Amino acid sequence: MSDTPPETRGSRETDDDAHEPDAVGRVYLVGSGPGDPDLLTVKARRLLAAADVVLHDKLPGPDVIDLIPEGRGEDVGKRAGGERTAQEYTNERLVELAREGKTVVRLKGGDPFVFGRGGEEAEHLAARGIPFEVVPGVTSAVAGPGVAGIPVTHRDHASSVTFVTGHEDPTKAESAVNWEALAATGGTLVVLMGVGRLPDYVGALRAAGMAPETPVALIERATWPDQRVAVGTLATIVEVRDREGIEPPAITVVGEVAATRERVAEFLENEVNDR
Amino acid sequence: MSDTPPETRGSRETDDDAHEPDAVGRVYLVGSGPGDPDLLTVKARRLLAAADVVLHDKLPGPDVIDLIPEGRGEDVGKRAGGERTAQEYTNERLVELAREGKTVVRLKGGDPFVFGRGGEEAEHLAARGIPFEVVPGVTSAVAGPGVAGIPVTHRDHASSVTFVTGHEDPTKAESAVNWEALAATGGTLVVLMGVGRLPDYVGALRAAGMAPETPVALIERATWPDQRVAVGTLATIVEVRDREGIEPPAITVVGEVAATRERVAEFLENEVNDR
Repeated sequence: MSDTPPETRGSRETDDDAHEPDAVGRVYLVGSGPGDPDLLTVKARRLLAAADVVLHDKLPGPDVIDLIPEGRGEDVGKRAGGERTAQEYTNERLVELAREGKTVVRLKGGDPFVFGRGGEEAEHLAARGIPFEVVPGVTSAVAGPGVAGIPVTHRDHASSVTFVTGHEDPTKAESAVNWEALAATGGTLVVLMGVGRLPDYVGALRAAGMAPETPVALIERATWPDQRVAVGTLATIVEVRDREGIEPPAITVVGEVAATRERVAEFLENEVNDR
Repeated sequence: MSDTPPETRGSRETDDDAHEPDAVGRVYLVGSGPGDPDLLTVKARRLLAAADVVLHDKLPGPDVIDLIPEGRGEDVGKRAGGERTAQEYTNERLVELAREGKTVVRLKGGDPFVFGRGGEEAEHLAARGIPFEVVPGVTSAVAGPGVAGIPVTHRDHASSVTFVTGHEDPTKAESAVNWEALAATGGTLVVLMGVGRLPDYVGALRAAGMAPETPVALIERATWPDQRVAVGTLATIVEVRDREGIEPPAITVVGEVAATRERVAEFLENEVNDR
């Protein structure tokens, strides 16, 4: 399988076959979007149908995983053999399959290069001489707020947007995330995978001087059939989370734009469709 | 046309028909991705084929605009009548068409809610009682770097990514963008629509203390057939831009991740396919 027209492909092999022997397959690092299979790209859909093997974890969500043809999927989410981590296992498995001449799709939730460790996979493949292609996807960091009626940027009140993970403990001295600088950008903050640590980074943002009345929205299982949205402010959102029982996977949006939700929700049809 | 199964749709209308008379159509705010028609979502593709009218400007790019069925497209990019701006014209035109009972697609380059003014359109529609749906797209801010082999985040050297527009003059006192805070985040910066003002924000970032050897990449016409990529550092990128003649539309990536490009380019097949 190839996306390239035969002529182009042929001429490239002539130029370039030193590093692309006939036997080596190709790896596609493919973003699967936020979970609604309708939000896969046309290219991702086609590659899924045609791949020899699809390496995935649970993050694409059940409706997307169901699209993998019978017998072609391989769940690498929890795999780790001997001294290797799951990521090392995946890196090596991609190389192994490509060297068998397989067309391999590495399917990743959202976009492969937004907190997806796709960059590490790309570097691993290149270091071992495996040709690969990046197929961007709809990132949950934009689509999650979007389907809840929240624009991550706005001409009047958000001239930037920052994505950050909430995985890390923001109270640790060696935290790689500078919450103070993030608060100072004045733009929207989208925190991925962080609903569990919500009290920590809400605290860090307030300590950095962000106003307690700053709007905050939580989007649980964005675009999945059981999506839920809860809204509050920096002062109230932890209580809102607890009251509503919002659980991972969820996205947190901090900033004036989060208030858009309440102004548009009555006429927003996404959720009618999505349930 | 409706994406909703008849049962759901029917029951909602019963509950809710006070604000949704039968005669009113629906507006879809649809992201078209970075320009490669293969990076449209499955849903966008289906809506484009089925819409009564598609309002668009030039940003989706020629290959996507070519997918609009004959006679259904309406270019609102430069339209402004009397005292209205192009944006006011578009807002009103969406309402007008929906009130005629039309199914309207508002097609926007990238994602409708990333610097696309989709938020303003959503609020305008909700304020006038027009049902609408948001269809997220692949944002160029992620896909542009991605197809050039650059992951916008990286476990080892970019725990956040910020998107910002380069439209604005960063030397203006009232600039809404706090370049100093952006420099302090320590994460990746992706500047959209800013190649013309490159010297201004490179200067602002250096003045904020960002190291001159920080890697920078420029991606011109990302995913379009004539895509080009140029790389340098904060110290050299203006010269690189001028030497290579990089012109809008282009995306600027500032941060350690931009150096990934050179490590993976030899085995990255995107550009072979895209040309």
